[in-house]
Amino acid sequence: MRPSSSPSEPAGPGGAGLFDGVLARGGVRVLVSDRAWLQAMLDVEAALARALARSGLIPAEDAEAIGAACRAELFDVATLGAAAPDTGTPVVPMVRSLAAAVGGRAAGHVHRGATSQDVMDTAAMLVTRRAFDPLLEDVHAAAGAAAGLAAAHRGTVLAGRTLLQHALPTTFGLQAAGWMSGLDSAAARLEDVRATRLAVQLGGAAGTLASLGDQGLGVARFVAEDLGLAEPVLPWHTERTRIAEVAGALGEAAGAVAKPARDVILLAQTEVAEVREGTPGRGGSSTLPHKRNPIAAVGAAAGAGRAPGLVATLLSSMAHEHERAAGPWHTEWVTLSQLLSTVGSAAAWLRDCLEHLEVDAARMRSNLDLTGGLLLAERVATALAPAVGRLAAHDAVERAAAEAAAAGRPFADALAGIPEIREHLSNEEIAALLDPAGYLGSAGAFVDRALEAHRGRREGHP
Amino acid sequence: MRPSSSPSEPAGPGGAGLFDGVLARGGVRVLVSDRAWLQAMLDVEAALARALARSGLIPAEDAEAIGAACRAELFDVATLGAAAPDTGTPVVPMVRSLAAAVGGRAAGHVHRGATSQDVMDTAAMLVTRRAFDPLLEDVHAAAGAAAGLAAAHRGTVLAGRTLLQHALPTTFGLQAAGWMSGLDSAAARLEDVRATRLAVQLGGAAGTLASLGDQGLGVARFVAEDLGLAEPVLPWHTERTRIAEVAGALGEAAGAVAKPARDVILLAQTEVAEVREGTPGRGGSSTLPHKRNPIAAVGAAAGAGRAPGLVATLLSSMAHEHERAAGPWHTEWVTLSQLLSTVGSAAAWLRDCLEHLEVDAARMRSNLDLTGGLLLAERVATALAPAVGRLAAHDAVERAAAEAAAAGRPFADALAGIPEIREHLSNEEIAALLDPAGYLGSAGAFVDRALEAHRGRREGHP
Amino acid sequence: MRPSSSPSEPAGPGGAGLFDGVLARGGVRVLVSDRAWLQAMLDVEAALARALARSGLIPAEDAEAIGAACRAELFDVATLGAAAPDTGTPVVPMVRSLAAAVGGRAAGHVHRGATSQDVMDTAAMLVTRRAFDPLLEDVHAAAGAAAGLAAAHRGTVLAGRTLLQHALPTTFGLQAAGWMSGLDSAAARLEDVRATRLAVQLGGAAGTLASLGDQGLGVARFVAEDLGLAEPVLPWHTERTRIAEVAGALGEAAGAVAKPARDVILLAQTEVAEVREGTPGRGGSSTLPHKRNPIAAVGAAAGAGRAPGLVATLLSSMAHEHERAAGPWHTEWVTLSQLLSTVGSAAAWLRDCLEHLEVDAARMRSNLDLTGGLLLAERVATALAPAVGRLAAHDAVERAAAEAAAAGRPFADALAGIPEIREHLSNEEIAALLDPAGYLGSAGAFVDRALEAHRGRREGHP
Amino acid sequence: MRPSSSPSEPAGPGGAGLFDGVLARGGVRVLVSDRAWLQAMLDVEAALARALARSGLIPAEDAEAIGAACRAELFDVATLGAAAPDTGTPVVPMVRSLAAAVGGRAAGHVHRGATSQDVMDTAAMLVTRRAFDPLLEDVHAAAGAAAGLAAAHRGTVLAGRTLLQHALPTTFGLQAAGWMSGLDSAAARLEDVRATRLAVQLGGAAGTLASLGDQGLGVARFVAEDLGLAEPVLPWHTERTRIAEVAGALGEAAGAVAKPARDVILLAQTEVAEVREGTPGRGGSSTLPHKRNPIAAVGAAAGAGRAPGLVATLLSSMAHEHERAAGPWHTEWVTLSQLLSTVGSAAAWLRDCLEHLEVDAARMRSNLDLTGGLLLAERVATALAPAVGRLAAHDAVERAAAEAAAAGRPFADALAGIPEIREHLSNEEIAALLDPAGYLGSAGAFVDRALEAHRGRREGHP
Repeated sequence: MRPSSSPSEPAGPGGAGLFDGVLARGGVRVLVSDRAWLQAMLDVEAALARALARSGLIPAEDAEAIGAACRAELFDVATLGAAAPDTGTPVVPMVRSLAAAVGGRAAGHVHRGATSQDVMDTAAMLVTRRAFDPLLEDVHAAAGAAAGLAAAHRGTVLAGRTLLQHALPTTFGLQAAGWMSGLDSAAARLEDVRATRLAVQLGGAAGTLASLGDQGLGVARFVAEDLGLAEPVLPWHTERTRIAEVAGALGEAAGAVAKPARDVILLAQTEVAEVREGTPGRGGSSTLPHKRNPIAAVGAAAGAGRAPGLVATLLSSMAHEHERAAGPWHTEWVTLSQLLSTVGSAAAWLRDCLEHLEVDAARMRSNLDLTGGLLLAERVATALAPAVGRLAAHDAVERAAAEAAAAGRPFADALAGIPEIREHLSNEEIAALLDPAGYLGSAGAFVDRALEAHRGRREGHP
Repeated sequence: MRPSSSPSEPAGPGGAGLFDGVLARGGVRVLVSDRAWLQAMLDVEAALARALARSGLIPAEDAEAIGAACRAELFDVATLGAAAPDTGTPVVPMVRSLAAAVGGRAAGHVHRGATSQDVMDTAAMLVTRRAFDPLLEDVHAAAGAAAGLAAAHRGTVLAGRTLLQHALPTTFGLQAAGWMSGLDSAAARLEDVRATRLAVQLGGAAGTLASLGDQGLGVARFVAEDLGLAEPVLPWHTERTRIAEVAGALGEAAGAVAKPARDVILLAQTEVAEVREGTPGRGGSSTLPHKRNPIAAVGAAAGAGRAPGLVATLLSSMAHEHERAAGPWHTEWVTLSQLLSTVGSAAAWLRDCLEHLEVDAARMRSNLDLTGGLLLAERVATALAPAVGRLAAHDAVERAAAEAAAAGRPFADALAGIPEIREHLSNEEIAALLDPAGYLGSAGAFVDRALEAHRGRREGHP
Repeated sequence: MRPSSSPSEPAGPGGAGLFDGVLARGGVRVLVSDRAWLQAMLDVEAALARALARSGLIPAEDAEAIGAACRAELFDVATLGAAAPDTGTPVVPMVRSLAAAVGGRAAGHVHRGATSQDVMDTAAMLVTRRAFDPLLEDVHAAAGAAAGLAAAHRGTVLAGRTLLQHALPTTFGLQAAGWMSGLDSAAARLEDVRATRLAVQLGGAAGTLASLGDQGLGVARFVAEDLGLAEPVLPWHTERTRIAEVAGALGEAAGAVAKPARDVILLAQTEVAEVREGTPGRGGSSTLPHKRNPIAAVGAAAGAGRAPGLVATLLSSMAHEHERAAGPWHTEWVTLSQLLSTVGSAAAWLRDCLEHLEVDAARMRSNLDLTGGLLLAERVATALAPAVGRLAAHDAVERAAAEAAAAGRPFADALAGIPEIREHLSNEEIAALLDPAGYLGSAGAFVDRALEAHRGRREGHP
Repeated sequence: MRPSSSPSEPAGPGGAGLFDGVLARGGVRVLVSDRAWLQAMLDVEAALARALARSGLIPAEDAEAIGAACRAELFDVATLGAAAPDTGTPVVPMVRSLAAAVGGRAAGHVHRGATSQDVMDTAAMLVTRRAFDPLLEDVHAAAGAAAGLAAAHRGTVLAGRTLLQHALPTTFGLQAAGWMSGLDSAAARLEDVRATRLAVQLGGAAGTLASLGDQGLGVARFVAEDLGLAEPVLPWHTERTRIAEVAGALGEAAGAVAKPARDVILLAQTEVAEVREGTPGRGGSSTLPHKRNPIAAVGAAAGAGRAPGLVATLLSSMAHEHERAAGPWHTEWVTLSQLLSTVGSAAAWLRDCLEHLEVDAARMRSNLDLTGGLLLAERVATALAPAVGRLAAHDAVERAAAEAAAAGRPFADALAGIPEIREHLSNEEIAALLDPAGYLGSAGAFVDRALEAHRGRREGHP
């Protein structure tokens, strides 16, 4: 397999724009640019020519001549785009320009056996695979940062919040482990799609490869090998489950990114202040030194928010008519690019956010104490039950809780003020029961298990 | 009100790309480009400066100095975009660059009283209004072309198709009138949104216009007058029903475009061949002269297909937190641009399609005859009923229909072969009953009424 | 116009289910039930019969006989549903059952001139109109509750939060006025759609009303008058902008509901505690007396969250082929019901939430003080600027802010500790500048103006 | 592992409704009914009790007593639903009713260690797994029917249609193989999700299983074993990638169903008439014997059309806040049910459609002949090129094509009338070149390969 050229140069037209810093952050943008698409299309033409030569259908030197001309910088994106409306795709003008650039006998072999959709669909797979690289790198790095937080804060107590209300103590390590776990799952799914579902499309005008005679299957296999894509059992020009799986995996990744972003935004609130983003020079305000806008988390949330609608568009476009769709296929092109770009951006922001997250464990603890131990009421009742009975224990603790809440009195004092409780529990016992660090159940075990799974996963996917 | 500058120059970065010819056709693309956004943002700053001057808060010459610098070509989009991540919006670097460009005392008055979201939101309204111009022009032109078809083919019989099966005769004029009616409704809704819901946003850092003291309302009114936007009762930085109505109207327009596009694609099928697109030099094939790809209709369908997902994204983003959203607001920016662009493209394609549509009335008639008059079976039964009773009439006609279908015999002959029918209906009467042109009910009246409404609507909206 | 029967009885099959209390709250559910649909379909048949009689096409007593049988309780929903697959709609079995119930001569006039889609589409409009009643009642009540909060808390200072960080002071009244304004806009749009876009569909098998001869338009008008629906210029069986506008208005309403729901959830957080839901017996916990789950706001958010996807489904289904769609039409039925139901539920929950909202103005003030006046830093700098120059003023205040933040010292003290400041501002002046109530800009004026608009709107729409 | 009861009885409230025959066809509906959800919730409680007993936390006889009461028919769905609003879920009233039904000491052990979300989430997994059974059966059967068509029509020539225009010949076997391949891919994905991603959720109030002390992990493992679900590394109450993968797989399945449904609708058109649905007693019309509505394909298309919006809703709801979401979680419940139901319905309709599809091979051939061999023009030019050169060959054939099209003359005659062609190709050679069956490229090989893959797949998944 020959290495396909990949676009490392500046994106040129379609390059960094006004909103790209915020909404198209990270390495994906340049890999879904018009230039990158054009290069991918040319890579397909070059691979096809080599496959034709390998099959003995065209001379090897013609394939080389074609391959040599398949460099995006030789073509003008705007010109090709402007000529696209005549046929409905940019492939026809691209092929015409390519043949002109190749010249001579070899020009007649350009695009042989293929149809426009073959080039676009296979290019879409190349673009997707290339875009997955930085996307996965960012998802993995974000998961790694979350793993670091989980390990570092395995024992950092945090108010567990349900419906945004304090419920029971948990640990920040367990919360971060959940972020990691979601990101790992999303990465695994992206990797699985990359490994199994990104395939060459080569079918010719109607999916039969008629103009290649009995050599069609061989040519298709050679193209697949050349580009490092799977060889499909059938041409899939109007069978779009591959696109659906790419879309679904990206939608999942967006959600896996959105969850920690949302949590960080909430934890960073002025009143909560348990975390803040620490990227130097960002999100601050000289006159409002208390303020540190969680820009990265906001960017991650914004990017993730664009994904579900784009996924729906791709899923809505799966009923491709007959041997080439009259609309749904064209709908896919930019939608796929935008979906890759926005999920890539979200992941890049989240990585930035988590890699620079400052955690205030003391504040986590003091916030937990806001309710003066009330979160442990159930635990006290459970401890008291053997002595006074389950119902009486519950009633006694409830009275103490009500009094503590009403009088703004420490819960420990209120508990000690109830005779049935004082009789059976010493002040020291009450204090121990009200220690949130003692009521964390399997939090630590969960974190350990999750970190082990995380490390195992990463070893398997170097 | 001073005229705001509008971007007529080439779009520069973010300009015509590889897919824009197909997926960003028409006049909208350039009006939602990065350059156009930047100009709109600068228009807001200029209008704000003039409003501050008009309110006596800054000297008139400073407002003029600011206004003079508010030209997009003085700024570099990529530089501004690259600086956006520090604050999460491109406004802060834009304001900084603008102040530098203004210089002197006036520099200190740039952006006074406003917050970033004020500039972005008001610019979004300007971009929307400007993009609505070519969009509405194309929707109106498409409706006009449909009106022309409806008038010209008021009496052209066509097989009415339900679930894509021939059902009863109708007219192509009535079908085209339906296209027109949908486009007119969509245009009316877009116009209504433009007239009533595109409003200035000016609230300052938290929506109170605190730094403008008691002059806030006056300044806001002056900005609104200057830009020709509505003055809202309240700042709407986190009240997004305006965005929802823009989105909804665009989604409706996409659907109104998709319907005729779908019909044209179906009518143009090789086996149906009742219409074909007639734009010279497009969609044809030299070796397949029978083939005329309905490129314009396909382009319209493709563009429309991208809209619903984008509408959903905007609707999903309406729960803006407190005084500025942490994610949903940023999600809106490019989504709105993409929605405007794709609906504009769809409308431009449909206009092209309908303005060049070639209609084959003879083929419509011959297709109708494919079923040999069977579509009129019900009519014959109705005519026969008074003589032989409803049930017997139905049975007799049903027998004839079955025989015609089974034997591939003309329905007229089969009818005449049934004694109960021949007894009461002459061959001439049968022929008249089987004439589809005689069984069109209110089709003509509907077309007349719809055309009248269309003309009335256009008079009201010059 | 005869009053159409409306379903007031229990919903029967399809009635209150396991999740309906949470996700189908309020009055809409019963009005979109299967029973309600069936009654609406029967109402159409009854109105059609009366219109045929009024047109002289059938005897008046036959219309009466038909009308008398058009009561949903005479039919079995499950039986009709089970027979629907043969023809793809429940209308055919319903018509058959209705004719059997009517009997005699009149049975032959049942459904005359209509096609299944006429009945379904007109019934959809009736269902929509009926469902809008409780929906609008709940939206108006929620807006009214928000108006009450806006008036009562016109001067209640609140930390304005951007990206969930304290930014500048605002008032809770202004925030509530924003909620009200969004709800009012959504209600106005729903009312507009109800008044102008809910129309009769009557076209017969192919949209020409062929079987009604030259009486088609008259019959359609009479049906419209009878049912209190608009008379459309054209049959709209495959022109779905009406459905799109219903969907868009519902999507907007969902967003208008989601915004205050989101704010309440955030304001009710344990650490913020500025509001809490006060519906007796809900959301509390005996052992966690500090906890009051914002169940109503959560229910509102959950219901609203289902809307955008359903709106997208309806918009995606607008390209109805030819004279009856092969799929998109069927897709609409339950999607419309579910959209009405979930938005109705969200509105009912929000009404409940806002009508029982307990506001803790003292806590709002103390939260505002968490940053010790830092939010007013800009104000102090502005006041100081005339004396020392803009730049020097900014620097001095910035130094004070940094010191206050670093040392945890009151901002007032830090300010007074800076010589340039102390020289020009007395302690009293500093204290006055740091009073948030004095830096609310146009907040009060905005609230007044919004309340006036709210009242004016309600007068127009009794 | 004990067998969990599964709901085989009638669905009761929420049962077959007016639209269910069309939009909730197949076996899924009853498995996502309220009754089925309730039974799944009870299955979770029973499994939890057994796991607690197995862990030694409660007596075995108490677990048995609880298990004995966990039968849905003992509870009233409407009553539970009506009580749900107080806490926001139906679990609390269900637990209360269950405890009452159990009575005695065992009542105190009901739901021990669990929180409401544990029960709902695990029940959702059970409901999903149970619903996947009939769904997969229908998808497999549809794929099997497509395989049968592919095998039977391996050599049946068909006009390959691009943008709905005749392009090149293909075979109906290849088209059907494409349907099969898409369905197989979707089934494989559903099976993969079922095998790897349906997991128990057990975390207690904040995800730590605090009230189970150090036995939490053991109890969770026992519950997983009991229910036959995966044991997750972490509680996933706010980590929703599992839901995303279920949603994505269902969205893919919907698209895989929509494609053949769309093709069948198009192939069944009156003018095309290459296939028709053959289910007895459905879709026909006595007076329109030519008409056979493709009801099953329409039903499949309608059901599939509802999926993308619902998928988007689930993906939009992935950012669950902290330890329990305030809205997004509740949004999932009915959305998941509706998605399962509509995809199940679509698959059931498609199975019906394909299992009864009547294929008219002669009509396929005669439609192909509509263009008189023009589809083979390219093939003639290729054959001629060696003799006269590529360009001259192309020109000559183009002239013949133009003439044939213009004069309505057979293409063979037109070709023979061009001197350069006649000189090199005999009439027999021309006729052979124009035989579509001779220009099918790899169509047969593709079908063979796809069928082999299909069979291999089915062997692996019995």
